[in-house]
Amino acid sequence: MGRVFVNIGLSLDGYMAPEGMTLEHWDHPEYKDWGAKWAALMGWIFGQQYFREILKLGPGGETGPLNDMLRHTMERTAANIMGKRMFEGGERGWPEEAPFHTPVYVLTHEKREPWSRPGGTTFYFVNDGPERALALARDSAAGRDVRIAGGANVIQQYLNLDLVDELEIALAPVLFGGGRRWLEGLGETPPRFRIDRVIHTPAATHLRYVRE
Amino acid sequence: MGRVFVNIGLSLDGYMAPEGMTLEHWDHPEYKDWGAKWAALMGWIFGQQYFREILKLGPGGETGPLNDMLRHTMERTAANIMGKRMFEGGERGWPEEAPFHTPVYVLTHEKREPWSRPGGTTFYFVNDGPERALALARDSAAGRDVRIAGGANVIQQYLNLDLVDELEIALAPVLFGGGRRWLEGLGETPPRFRIDRVIHTPAATHLRYVRE
Repeated sequence: MGRVFVNIGLSLDGYMAPEGMTLEHWDHPEYKDWGAKWAALMGWIFGQQYFREILKLGPGGETGPLNDMLRHTMERTAANIMGKRMFEGGERGWPEEAPFHTPVYVLTHEKREPWSRPGGTTFYFVNDGPERALALARDSAAGRDVRIAGGANVIQQYLNLDLVDELEIALAPVLFGGGRRWLEGLGETPPRFRIDRVIHTPAATHLRYVRE
Repeated sequence: MGRVFVNIGLSLDGYMAPEGMTLEHWDHPEYKDWGAKWAALMGWIFGQQYFREILKLGPGGETGPLNDMLRHTMERTAANIMGKRMFEGGERGWPEEAPFHTPVYVLTHEKREPWSRPGGTTFYFVNDGPERALALARDSAAGRDVRIAGGANVIQQYLNLDLVDELEIALAPVLFGGGRRWLEGLGETPPRFRIDRVIHTPAATHLRYVRE
């Protein structure tokens, strides 16, 4: 059976996104300086050749271990799961060719027909909760891996259900001072992980944990 | 001038101490499983030769890079600063020979005479705020380094005053699901750090950041 994994960027004070990075301020990255904070969090990814290639950002870029890591993450992901808020942000912010190229299961109360985008991404809207979304994702993944894409609240739901096999965290040396915390309502006995590997770079410490 | 540094253990979900690790439950480590969680956070330190030696825990222990790191931290620390809550926990929990061997400046509203312990630790009770405590600590350190020992709230005060030169974090692969967060009220423009080094072990990822 495929693995269920989380792969996020995290600030040193535990936020997945800076304050101000909302639909309302999407076009105003200077609002509470969210653009600069987000760049400090995720800037490393734009320097990688594979990321530049799949987002059609132009030629060039690094081709070292981080690039291999990005390629591996993309290639092993056969389905994605995300929350309604992340989808709504992306529906506005993603290019027409949404950057998933897999089925994407959106946890929502909204009833809506599947929405197919160029490049192989189809969004399915699931009204029956996280376990049902994972069952659908596993079916479509056919033994390959499923990524819990976010946001924070959805990742937490899957951790509380003990359905996450791997946590991959790019810990950036930046303090946000506010924003979307990645975990603030875990149960009292969260699942247990061991650390599997670290890739250390100036822009981020890439940590990988696997469930014990 | 000496450096001002923070050196803490941190859970993967951003807590410095598990829920239940309070004065009320100090003798009941099974309360909310805080003892096991704290052991997952800090257990590595009890395996180090230098720590065993200074706490008189007996012979043996590892003598590798973590041991060198612990020794370096202890030897460079010429004064400590801590909050009232940490002091009160320690007043109850530390051995008679308190494990500092330096002047310790306690931020508190309580007026109290200095309290000297065997082994060179003297606690001074400072009623005039964090900047005054740091001035006193710097004076007594005479050019050597000052450690902001904790707790979380005190560390945050010094970060908000932009008085922290170095952050050293032992990030343990454990989720607490609750407890004392290390940062939850930073200002909107926190100080900026760059990563200086990582020591990777199965029990914790030892991260060191210096102010830019």
